[in-house]
Amino acid sequence: MNEFELDERLRNDSLAVTTLALCDVRLMNDSRYRWLLLIPRRPGISEWHELSREDAAVLTDEIHAASAVLKKRTGADKINVAAIGNMVRQMHVHVVARHKGDETWPGTVWNSGQAVVYDDETAISLCKELSEDLAPGV
Amino acid sequence: MNEFELDERLRNDSLAVTTLALCDVRLMNDSRYRWLLLIPRRPGISEWHELSREDAAVLTDEIHAASAVLKKRTGADKINVAAIGNMVRQMHVHVVARHKGDETWPGTVWNSGQAVVYDDETAISLCKELSEDLAPGV
Repeated sequence: MNEFELDERLRNDSLAVTTLALCDVRLMNDSRYRWLLLIPRRPGISEWHELSREDAAVLTDEIHAASAVLKKRTGADKINVAAIGNMVRQMHVHVVARHKGDETWPGTVWNSGQAVVYDDETAISLCKELSEDLAPGV
Repeated sequence: MNEFELDERLRNDSLAVTTLALCDVRLMNDSRYRWLLLIPRRPGISEWHELSREDAAVLTDEIHAASAVLKKRTGADKINVAAIGNMVRQMHVHVVARHKGDETWPGTVWNSGQAVVYDDETAISLCKELSEDLAPGV
């Protein structure tokens, strides 16, 4: 089996946050939302049910950790969790902090217009903070 | 803690398929897609990370089972799995079989126009088949 390599589109649309036991965690470069991507480092996987039971259990823990961090950090009204992958086949899970009154509430964040990218300074500090938040207990 | 009671909107928008160890499984009443809902029978839960680790593990198994059944039955190009819940707070997971060229491909199925409801005969036979498919091994 090949080595894991991050999909180019995911790489271009997001910023590296940290590396957990199973997943690379990245921040979508769209400042309208606090929006994480969890990408299991398993080559060739596009569907959730293709993960082993062990990997699926770790993924669940990492989704929970990411959700809890976003909830705590943003006071989100709702966390949206989704594995869609109609455009990018490499399995990736969206974990998105949503607020009543955000740009597309109560609609979804996908196909929701143009991303508003972070300025460099904000991106660096936010990724660092999220990385620190995700470090313990995972 | 109160008894679990299915949210009224989920009930109105979908048809009962079967009951698994954790979740009620329902078919969205929208014949444009083969679209299942998994609703953990836990009162007061709206977020994935509010489930216990044990329940989360069972949920993963049930998502995998639902995904595999849809994939096998429909030959889907992609399974979309999502817990959104911006409109209905009661936790529910969408498991949707997607095909290249379906009405909203490669977009998502949420906020995608008017549902096309099943006729009674199709609904009954489809729910029965899905129930049988989901019975073993879960």
